[in-house]
Amino acid sequence: MTSPRIILLAHGSSDKRWCETFEQLADPTLKAVDNARIAYMELAEPSMDTVIAQGVAEGASDFVIIPLFLAAGRHLRKDVPAMIKELEQTHGANIHLAPPIGENPVLGQAIRDVVMMQLEQAPS
Amino acid sequence: MTSPRIILLAHGSSDKRWCETFEQLADPTLKAVDNARIAYMELAEPSMDTVIAQGVAEGASDFVIIPLFLAAGRHLRKDVPAMIKELEQTHGANIHLAPPIGENPVLGQAIRDVVMMQLEQAPS
Repeated sequence: MTSPRIILLAHGSSDKRWCETFEQLADPTLKAVDNARIAYMELAEPSMDTVIAQGVAEGASDFVIIPLFLAAGRHLRKDVPAMIKELEQTHGANIHLAPPIGENPVLGQAIRDVVMMQLEQAPS
Repeated sequence: MTSPRIILLAHGSSDKRWCETFEQLADPTLKAVDNARIAYMELAEPSMDTVIAQGVAEGASDFVIIPLFLAAGRHLRKDVPAMIKELEQTHGANIHLAPPIGENPVLGQAIRDVVMMQLEQAPS
């Protein structure tokens, strides 16, 4: 059995700057994890559908979606699970939805580090 | 001159679980930084108005708002700056809007760490 493919799921926006920020956020993970990809829930490409279709074409069947969201709202409680159900049927894939990154205590510690860096700068 | 008060700004939601996640995310910062507070942009209390009014009543005049957002969209580019302008006039305070936490490279590294932890668990 091969390990599941990691998909970092961002919300997406028609604003390119939004997507660029998420690409930078994803970059350390994409460099560290083989075959990891970023995908957008809406308004930007690649979509989950695109990324999963590509993975299946390359022989993958198991995917883990890790939401680049700080908390779970309507999107992660309703919209994304419904999209996943449909994607599983369309592509014959197993797709596991992980908790949003913000539910991991590592994020709270990172936020504290960011605030500490901010405090060392004079407000501009 | 006293150092500015730190306000961690979350989006807010009528869903209590959403706010609880942000309170947990804010916790390490609130423990590490004197007089730091969390505030919500909308749909939850305390609002920015509440937190700044309280700070001013306690003698503070300078505030730094650090958005607990992964990227800057319409809210941080338009809505929040407009709210800040109004709050500055209402409360006679100086309010500096910092970049969203997601623009700091520390966050991308934290995401990689979260993914690594996720990979060590079998998908449930």
